[in-house]
Amino acid sequence: MLVAEVETPALLIDADALEANIATMATALPGPRLRPHVKAHKCTELARRQAAAGHRNFTCATIRECEGMAAAGLGEDLLLANEVLDARRIGNLVAAGARVTVAVDSPQTIEAAAGGGVREVLIDVNVGLPRCGCAPQDAGRLADRARSRGLQVRGVMGYEGHVVGLPDAAERAEKCRAAMELLVAAHADVGGDLVSGGGTGTYELNTWANEIQAGSYALMDTAYGKLGLPYRQAAFVLATVVSRSDGWAVGNAGLKALAMDHGNPDVADGTVMFCSDEHVTFRPPRPVGEQAWLAPAHIDPTMSCHERAYVFSGEKVVDVWPVDLRGW
Amino acid sequence: MLVAEVETPALLIDADALEANIATMATALPGPRLRPHVKAHKCTELARRQAAAGHRNFTCATIRECEGMAAAGLGEDLLLANEVLDARRIGNLVAAGARVTVAVDSPQTIEAAAGGGVREVLIDVNVGLPRCGCAPQDAGRLADRARSRGLQVRGVMGYEGHVVGLPDAAERAEKCRAAMELLVAAHADVGGDLVSGGGTGTYELNTWANEIQAGSYALMDTAYGKLGLPYRQAAFVLATVVSRSDGWAVGNAGLKALAMDHGNPDVADGTVMFCSDEHVTFRPPRPVGEQAWLAPAHIDPTMSCHERAYVFSGEKVVDVWPVDLRGW
Repeated sequence: MLVAEVETPALLIDADALEANIATMATALPGPRLRPHVKAHKCTELARRQAAAGHRNFTCATIRECEGMAAAGLGEDLLLANEVLDARRIGNLVAAGARVTVAVDSPQTIEAAAGGGVREVLIDVNVGLPRCGCAPQDAGRLADRARSRGLQVRGVMGYEGHVVGLPDAAERAEKCRAAMELLVAAHADVGGDLVSGGGTGTYELNTWANEIQAGSYALMDTAYGKLGLPYRQAAFVLATVVSRSDGWAVGNAGLKALAMDHGNPDVADGTVMFCSDEHVTFRPPRPVGEQAWLAPAHIDPTMSCHERAYVFSGEKVVDVWPVDLRGW
Repeated sequence: MLVAEVETPALLIDADALEANIATMATALPGPRLRPHVKAHKCTELARRQAAAGHRNFTCATIRECEGMAAAGLGEDLLLANEVLDARRIGNLVAAGARVTVAVDSPQTIEAAAGGGVREVLIDVNVGLPRCGCAPQDAGRLADRARSRGLQVRGVMGYEGHVVGLPDAAERAEKCRAAMELLVAAHADVGGDLVSGGGTGTYELNTWANEIQAGSYALMDTAYGKLGLPYRQAAFVLATVVSRSDGWAVGNAGLKALAMDHGNPDVADGTVMFCSDEHVTFRPPRPVGEQAWLAPAHIDPTMSCHERAYVFSGEKVVDVWPVDLRGW
């Protein structure tokens, strides 16, 4: 099939850009130095390419991501970098032979892990992002509690999500250091082998974590595209111009094909005016029937809008990958 | 199952609110005066309730919505209120016995309809929203062209999408009038029985269209909730507090469960600080394990994040409906 024949709207992946992005990262952070985050693509076929590049350990954000990765034979060492209060589905995976480590940050999440059949945990430490993670000074106490419940504590994780998108590289480096010093101090209280953190925006700056949870580097988006990183846009939403006027054109991809939390997508050779449920209005006008290539502002929730991704090289579609880790 | 037992994140529908919303609308716009827009819920089970209230004609935004409605036995009179350049799947539905009318606004979309086996069209007229629709003065000429290609022209449609959300009711009424006068003038040039337009924000103001395409009224969202309409919030995203600190709580529903184009959701008894892929951070803090009810800012793209909806009455889940019209 040719790209020109793909029924739109559709999610397209540039095979060459993806391969280059994966290779660049595998050189910078070889093997277990990277624990790719599958939430950024939700696609086991893409994860297979990351595994082939040497990364056998993966990060997940949902139980279903863990289940799908294990079912795809990629369950050698999965980290559920998220808190859960019902860990029984994870326990089932562990019983079936997958290795799944779960983040905990409270007595309740420790109880859920122990009660659900989880064997290994990481202590999730808040390093400045107002989200999950215990206070750094509580990490050691939680680790003791987890051990007392029979759980093996593999170390700590802390995600500097308030830092990864900062446009100024020097500020990003400084705030990454401050965040990771908190994590390193917590690690001293906790013990274990793993110090897990980082993202695409800090993958080279974060020299404190011994594994980096980057995910967006593989497909990229326009937000990370502004940081000057050596990764290029590999995912696009393809639309067809279905209507035009003197002032604008309308493509058939909108809010159900593109996440808007980071703003409008970019359109090649034009400016997006706004998106609605099934449409993107942009200028200048372009003939009805032409394709319009949209670069998403935020890749993770855009991927989860799509059932499949068309992988292309040049003008040809070379593969179709199910986006098979969606849902919960 | 009890609501307290639902695995989160989950989309919940308040059966009593839904029933009241459907009844209120069926009284205001009985039978064919309303052509409910299924893009707002993407759920054939919900459409069945609208049909049971007397509305047998439906509006769709995608080909898959048409296919799913026809497969569910709700294909008596479907309007695809959107332009398509490959109408063959619609032609297949028509050949199989569904009635599907397709919007056209250009020579190309007329050719696609005729070539794809479509028999009936509406002329889509731009009434002020910078999106699809021909210029009003071109409508008659396009209708002639469609007829010359063997298509039956059932009338006109024009969506005043730039008007439906205006907070001031008087301004909404005045701009609705201006938009619909354009549509009525185009209708005089086009002929046919249908003058189709309107939405939840103008369903009572728009007395020019003889059928109203409202959809959001059934489930509502916080954007429409600000307009003082007699419909109440019936759809919620249910989250569980998985982490808390001194300053905030974190629920396990985020950008993959909630569309952000209209802004953050509302959280009961609190204020949302921000959403990330799988989390909502809000204040004040609340105990780990508690449920948090989120009211989406925009219902349509929120529904398309979910595979199913849990219908509840009081504390009990009374039904589970597949959100079966997702994708394209």
